[in-house]
Amino acid sequence: MDETIRNEILALRQTAGVAYVTSVDGQGYPQVKAMLVLEHTSAVTQFFSTNTSSRRVGQFQANPKASVYYCDPARFMGALFTGRMRVRADAQARRGLWREGFECYYPKGVDDEDYSVLEFTAETVNYYHGLHNATFAITELEAAQAEGEKRG
Amino acid sequence: MDETIRNEILALRQTAGVAYVTSVDGQGYPQVKAMLVLEHTSAVTQFFSTNTSSRRVGQFQANPKASVYYCDPARFMGALFTGRMRVRADAQARRGLWREGFECYYPKGVDDEDYSVLEFTAETVNYYHGLHNATFAITELEAAQAEGEKRG
Repeated sequence: MDETIRNEILALRQTAGVAYVTSVDGQGYPQVKAMLVLEHTSAVTQFFSTNTSSRRVGQFQANPKASVYYCDPARFMGALFTGRMRVRADAQARRGLWREGFECYYPKGVDDEDYSVLEFTAETVNYYHGLHNATFAITELEAAQAEGEKRG
Repeated sequence: MDETIRNEILALRQTAGVAYVTSVDGQGYPQVKAMLVLEHTSAVTQFFSTNTSSRRVGQFQANPKASVYYCDPARFMGALFTGRMRVRADAQARRGLWREGFECYYPKGVDDEDYSVLEFTAETVNYYHGLHNATFAITELEAAQAEGEKRG
């Protein structure tokens, strides 16, 4: 993976307000929903907040296959991370993602039983920009990211 | 389906520049891509243009299960149509969707063998707006649409 591609993928993830998170339902249909991007720490592991009672949680518990998509349609540019979703309700995950104002979604606060964290782990990333289109193992992005940070 | 919901769903489809089209790949992972909305004729049958050689075409030929999502993330509003995708390469479908400027994607014109049409037929629609969330059979939307047109 060359540096330009690495930077473009990371910029899409770093600057995104919204990601499109997909699941497969019990009848095998793909489903998608726009979700708020609450953290930009890593492109490999990505966290989202959700209602424990939501259909989406049930779908990921039955079938963890998932993808997370960041795009800039006006520039014909997108990065589709494919991997697995884990539903977490432990205190560490809840506290790590909790943000001021979440009380409007989860009135009982950080321990609200209707608050769960979705932890996505990417296995591959497909990147396209105009006519360029390529898929990489996520280890290639990690290696390029580490190399870039070393050089500053 | 009440009139407000019908109007909000139809408005999302009518005014969208981009839809998020999902498929399931050969390993069972859900995939998604932003696609240009080229027509707004019906909310039940929806057409998209694509490259015949694209991975997406192969995915839909192997597994027609699909969804098409329109959303306004800033207003916490979205309509997710779930149904089946048919890949069409016949002249009627190609000519019906052809737009001025498509030559930049399909240099050989409307009969370019790399130009295919995706025809999506919705079976259900899930609509959410804030905390409201409900799923309808597509026949309910059709009935509401016909009723609305009758009344003007």
